[in-house]
Amino acid sequence: MEFKVTHHDSSGGARRGEIITAHGRFETPVFMPVGTQGSVKALSPLDLEQAGVGILLANTYHLYLRPGHGLIERLGGLHHFMSWEGAILTDSGGYQVYSLSNLRKISEEGVTFQSHVDGSTHFIGPCEAMEIQKALGADVIMAFDECAPYPADYDYVRNSVRLTSQWAAMCLQCTRGVSQALFGIVQGGMVPELREQSAREIVAMGFDGYALGGLSVGEDRATRRRVVQETVPFLPADKPRYLMGVGKPEDILDGVAAGIDMFDCVLPTRNARNGALFTKHGPLAIKNACYAEDDRPVDEHCSCYTCTHFSRAYLRHLFMAKELLAYRLNTIHNLHYYMGFMTGVRQAIQEDRFTDFCEGFFERSEE
Amino acid sequence: MEFKVTHHDSSGGARRGEIITAHGRFETPVFMPVGTQGSVKALSPLDLEQAGVGILLANTYHLYLRPGHGLIERLGGLHHFMSWEGAILTDSGGYQVYSLSNLRKISEEGVTFQSHVDGSTHFIGPCEAMEIQKALGADVIMAFDECAPYPADYDYVRNSVRLTSQWAAMCLQCTRGVSQALFGIVQGGMVPELREQSAREIVAMGFDGYALGGLSVGEDRATRRRVVQETVPFLPADKPRYLMGVGKPEDILDGVAAGIDMFDCVLPTRNARNGALFTKHGPLAIKNACYAEDDRPVDEHCSCYTCTHFSRAYLRHLFMAKELLAYRLNTIHNLHYYMGFMTGVRQAIQEDRFTDFCEGFFERSEE
Repeated sequence: MEFKVTHHDSSGGARRGEIITAHGRFETPVFMPVGTQGSVKALSPLDLEQAGVGILLANTYHLYLRPGHGLIERLGGLHHFMSWEGAILTDSGGYQVYSLSNLRKISEEGVTFQSHVDGSTHFIGPCEAMEIQKALGADVIMAFDECAPYPADYDYVRNSVRLTSQWAAMCLQCTRGVSQALFGIVQGGMVPELREQSAREIVAMGFDGYALGGLSVGEDRATRRRVVQETVPFLPADKPRYLMGVGKPEDILDGVAAGIDMFDCVLPTRNARNGALFTKHGPLAIKNACYAEDDRPVDEHCSCYTCTHFSRAYLRHLFMAKELLAYRLNTIHNLHYYMGFMTGVRQAIQEDRFTDFCEGFFERSEE
Repeated sequence: MEFKVTHHDSSGGARRGEIITAHGRFETPVFMPVGTQGSVKALSPLDLEQAGVGILLANTYHLYLRPGHGLIERLGGLHHFMSWEGAILTDSGGYQVYSLSNLRKISEEGVTFQSHVDGSTHFIGPCEAMEIQKALGADVIMAFDECAPYPADYDYVRNSVRLTSQWAAMCLQCTRGVSQALFGIVQGGMVPELREQSAREIVAMGFDGYALGGLSVGEDRATRRRVVQETVPFLPADKPRYLMGVGKPEDILDGVAAGIDMFDCVLPTRNARNGALFTKHGPLAIKNACYAEDDRPVDEHCSCYTCTHFSRAYLRHLFMAKELLAYRLNTIHNLHYYMGFMTGVRQAIQEDRFTDFCEGFFERSEE
């Protein structure tokens, strides 16, 4: 994987760059839609390509449980399995073990947990997480970390930073000679000195990129922004920086302003399935009665398949009638919105007007 | 609407033809996928176009209840509402009132019934059915009939034939000057003389096409074939003949052999959502464990998007994980199978080898 910064916005910390992988090139700041189980829900690979997606995220935890990483490896890896020619990043499974599984038990060696699918007991430690991700064959893989809950007391977070560093070193050992890019994850909760300590330790080990984990776990936007701003200075400028699980467009702007290059979030896809559509003027709840006879598209300036072919009235009808097409058309639109939003972000950086871009965004949202 | 027979198969009663509507031309025998609520479940209009669909069926009963025919009319009619440029046929609602609604009460004037959506009480008679279908604006609309259950005693069926003729006359009156094609429906259950009587009465009124209703209601294949064979001779040769709600590929072959031109059925789309995929060698149940690591497409000779991009293993994974993409990919394949099957039927007729085609089909199915 190659990464280079191609432009720094003179009005702030935002930067534009590009990443080249064995599965294509994409520009940063980049948004990665989430294909949890090897499918971005309701979309085909062609839909993703048409939305301009260059890299997607798949969840190691889910694919490990079903259909199993061994099966995917025997079938030629995740790209071939899901027929996706673009780049893929797999997370380490740590966050899903924390948020989805039952009876989680953490030891020095890793985490024992119960599957959310069938209740069976499993163990994943740093080497297991690497083996699974090697089998899946993503372009970018993530170190196995311990994600502290929020709120958490100081001692819990300190221990989570210690375990995360210990496991990060093991992840590096387990992936010697592997061609996949490996990103380290910085933990440290909302505590400035623990974030600094975690960042210094992880960076010292030398990864291909650095992620901020343990955010979007319930903290408010100002806290999240503060932690990102305080942590980024400890990350090297020549490696990609990835803010995991973030987020809303405004959170992405905060991250980009702080120098973040990569984002992922289920928001555009999950909201679509719940009938919440993104527009420049804020969210549009398609089930609302006011759209029953509204012949306009969701967004008159949007060029997606949904907006160029279907009215709000039809989308509302599909949603109310629980037609499967509703989920796909809504997701196509929301993803198109996000990809267009990121294109706008990159253009603004290129033209040294990212600060203005942010102001314009917040003004429009408040209309 | 224009219809002409372009070829009679010299080996039997099968015939090839074409229908020209304001929304395009298509060849017969034709299969119409079912877009119950103004959407062929899980597919977009582009998916339908790519499958080669020339005409689809929408259900008057469902669209009347939700979102309402008035709303669809105000939004420019069903074609515009669902963004479908091909032809549409709407049924009369009679069959759905019979099969889906509660507390159905039949009088000389029509049917009072409770909505399956919200339990509200509604009345539809022949003139109401015409008004609804005029508002929806399909290219072909159907007379309002009384569909006898199966089994039904002789007196019930005789009365249903009487009501169907009485209502058919009213449907003609209510649609004077309407540019939509109106098809009459022949009832008569499984009773030869009642089918003959119904056919003679309906044909005498002069419709743009003739449908056989009251089949696929639980009777066996031999009975259905007999009724179709006995009834078709009473229908004029220069008008399209439509066998409603049929069916499995073998039922379609029976119908084509008897001189039927049009078919509709939920089978390819519903089976797809249940994971039952059509192949030349019979059904393939994608959930079966034997497909877990099967890297082959569903059908190696199929050119659909699903078969050219995804393995049985991936389709099985999507289905087991209840991923929304499963329903679309399965439906694309099944519909492609049906459309290809009909293309084969038409070609065989053109080349006077329809009887051989049928034999070959049954041999392959039994492999």
